[in-house]
Amino acid sequence: MRRALALAALGPAHGPNPRVGCVLLDPGGRTVAEGYHRGAGTPHAEAAALADARSRGVDPRGTTAVVTLEPCAHHGRTGPCADALIDAGVAAVHVAVGDPNPVATGGADRLRAAGIPVTVGLLADEGEELLRAWLHAVRAGRPYVTLKLATSLDGRVAAVDGTSRWITGARARAHAHTVRAQVDAIAVGSGTALTDDPSLTARRTDGGLFDHQPLRVVLGRRPLPDGARLRGPGGELLQLPGDDLDAALRALGDREVRHLLVEGGPTLATALLAADAVDELHAYVAPVLLGAGATAVGDLGVTTIGDAARFATEDVTRLGDDLLLVARRIAPAAGPAAPAGSAGGEIEYENGSVHTAQHGRPRRHTEEEI
Amino acid sequence: MRRALALAALGPAHGPNPRVGCVLLDPGGRTVAEGYHRGAGTPHAEAAALADARSRGVDPRGTTAVVTLEPCAHHGRTGPCADALIDAGVAAVHVAVGDPNPVATGGADRLRAAGIPVTVGLLADEGEELLRAWLHAVRAGRPYVTLKLATSLDGRVAAVDGTSRWITGARARAHAHTVRAQVDAIAVGSGTALTDDPSLTARRTDGGLFDHQPLRVVLGRRPLPDGARLRGPGGELLQLPGDDLDAALRALGDREVRHLLVEGGPTLATALLAADAVDELHAYVAPVLLGAGATAVGDLGVTTIGDAARFATEDVTRLGDDLLLVARRIAPAAGPAAPAGSAGGEIEYENGSVHTAQHGRPRRHTEEEI
Ligand SMILES: NC(=O)c1ccc[n+]([C@@H]2O[C@H](COP(=O)([O-])OP(=O)(O)OC[C@H]3O[C@@H](n4cnc5c(N)ncnc54)[C@H](OP(=O)(O)O)[C@@H]3O)[C@@H](O)[C@H]2O)c1
Ligand SMILES: NC(=O)c1ccc[n+]([C@@H]2O[C@H](COP(=O)([O-])OP(=O)(O)OC[C@H]3O[C@@H](n4cnc5c(N)ncnc54)[C@H](OP(=O)(O)O)[C@@H]3O)[C@@H](O)[C@H]2O)c1
Repeated sequence: MRRALALAALGPAHGPNPRVGCVLLDPGGRTVAEGYHRGAGTPHAEAAALADARSRGVDPRGTTAVVTLEPCAHHGRTGPCADALIDAGVAAVHVAVGDPNPVATGGADRLRAAGIPVTVGLLADEGEELLRAWLHAVRAGRPYVTLKLATSLDGRVAAVDGTSRWITGARARAHAHTVRAQVDAIAVGSGTALTDDPSLTARRTDGGLFDHQPLRVVLGRRPLPDGARLRGPGGELLQLPGDDLDAALRALGDREVRHLLVEGGPTLATALLAADAVDELHAYVAPVLLGAGATAVGDLGVTTIGDAARFATEDVTRLGDDLLLVARRIAPAAGPAAPAGSAGGEIEYENGSVHTAQHGRPRRHTEEEI
Repeated sequence: MRRALALAALGPAHGPNPRVGCVLLDPGGRTVAEGYHRGAGTPHAEAAALADARSRGVDPRGTTAVVTLEPCAHHGRTGPCADALIDAGVAAVHVAVGDPNPVATGGADRLRAAGIPVTVGLLADEGEELLRAWLHAVRAGRPYVTLKLATSLDGRVAAVDGTSRWITGARARAHAHTVRAQVDAIAVGSGTALTDDPSLTARRTDGGLFDHQPLRVVLGRRPLPDGARLRGPGGELLQLPGDDLDAALRALGDREVRHLLVEGGPTLATALLAADAVDELHAYVAPVLLGAGATAVGDLGVTTIGDAARFATEDVTRLGDDLLLVARRIAPAAGPAAPAGSAGGEIEYENGSVHTAQHGRPRRHTEEEI
């Protein structure tokens, strides 16, 4: 399964389809063929592995298929993978993650009905991690939202005169471009679109465009001028009213946008946070103090420290003088966000203390000295 | 010299005296004795190394002394180390860093006058790094100032209702206590002293006090109540008016405070930054968004991004869910801060571009697209 996961990771992070890897093992446990999905319009991982077997002159009959995601049971651009495995005569199937996609699910049942034993859940955590954005999007019917912030140490995204180029340095910006090249869409509010005239393309450090250019989304009603860079070379441009964020996210979900990167500005970021619609934060922080200017986020309705919007740190990376903190929503498991006002759960911490969480945010009440 | 530096680092980081290590090598280059300074009132490193030689029955005559700091030439609590080395008959002396202390300097000249060859500058960078705060304080006549900030990702130090415990988590707080145990003094403004009633002691994770307790300094005119925790167990308490920051820092320098840790609040932090008196930043950042509440720093007079107060990142460490960014003043070399309005220098960057700096802050002017 480790090898299958490594193969899966070779596929593109963006696109409507999940990244899947597949390995065929002979009865002695030796790898005889492997394959992965290279993106929409190309064979699924199982089909790729079976084709690999054929091209090597290996008979897949009696092999064990190790697949990172439950083989699909539906006719898409390719036939159902479950049927392909049945037809090929595999003896058993091991799966990391079950397919939550309502149109594709059922592969395991189909295989079992054909008498092929299937186990699901092998290295499930690694499998879920690899497919994090895709699984979220398919389960929730709207994209996984990553909010990018580029701030000074005092949390400002622009100086008093509105200038914000460049708070962060070249390495942080280059990193942000590689993230752009991995998502399906980038969104900004119309304030940023009009003030900064961004191109929102994914560029290499030499200025050239990456092959994959994400859909460019402007949320807001104000029209863009004809000469806007957003109308220039790059991904398709889409403007949506942002007042109803839920509707906007569902519209993007309907377009099979699995991973949406939101690059600001503060008004849009605040609206998303207030709606508890941010799944991941990418905070690029520069060792700079501004003392004044627009802050990264506006009023979230938080009045006391225990109510702060807390995220769980996933990773901290130094990028030149700047740093990148990746943190994730402390979420009540999967599925759409809990409705506002719903009862909170309890979160237990390493130290054994228990905090009551609301909207997945732990509250702390302490009276210690400093 | 590496060994001498490692020995030096065993000494206490706080205290009026520098951390110094000394190794005696026989003519074959083998270490025959070593010593380091364990803090005010104990022998200097050279004396400790000579004593070590005696206790091992080694004759220091003809050995080479490798010392991290130029041997002193003055009578303090101990006699001049230069004389001790001359009397012991060492054949040569290697030094990392020259002594900038006006009352102690001259040791190298004294040794040379006695016919002993002296080289200065071996691993000078490492030597300067180890003695960074001390060298700065002795050269400038005022403490090296480290400003600690504990902020949310959006740069806030407290929620709307003034609560700030705890933005950061247990590991960040434990780290901050180890820093307290390494400095000579901790300062807060009277706003923080009155609002938070801090104890400003250096505590272990079990709550017990570290052996060394820094001087506790409150800057401001408002008196502390009788029951204030600052009047409880811990370091000596000193209150100074803070309006004249230069005078306050000099007063601390006169008390041989080499390293001052400033723990807030925003008013004091802003005043220090505006006076360009912050040598090092310790920013503990939590993956939390508040959206409102006091910001880490107030108005610095910065209106456009190129004028931002920029620091150079020294280190980034993850501490549980939080991170610590250590950054240093981008400074026009040593000495007291350049007077306001003085001409800026030019700073050359790795990429070859040259930025004009004012008060040590590089300015960037770019018109790139986002
Ligand atoms: N450093 C950084 O990370 C960064 C990133 C981006 C921007 N910035 C800076 O931020 C500034 C622009 O700030 P901004 O706050 O005006 O930008 P913004 O958030 O990009 O745009 C605000 C606009 O977005 C629209 N919008 C869409 N959905 C919305 C919703 N749910 N609620 C409210 N409004 C919604 C509204 O436009 P309509 O009125 O047209 O409907 C609103 O006026 C610029 O100075 C820019 O340089 C900094
Ligand atoms: N998260 C954190 O890192 C952190 C750290 C500390 C505090 N805080 C929060 O900050 C808040 C307190 O803020 P604050 O700004 O009032 O605190 P402050 O900066 O500690 O105190 C301000 C006071 O310091 C005195 N002062 C000394 N030197 C000064 C100078 N050069 N210029 C101006 N004033 C000087 C003045 O007092 P006099 O009028 O008495 O002369 C002034 O009113 C609290 O809510 C606390 O919880 C947060």
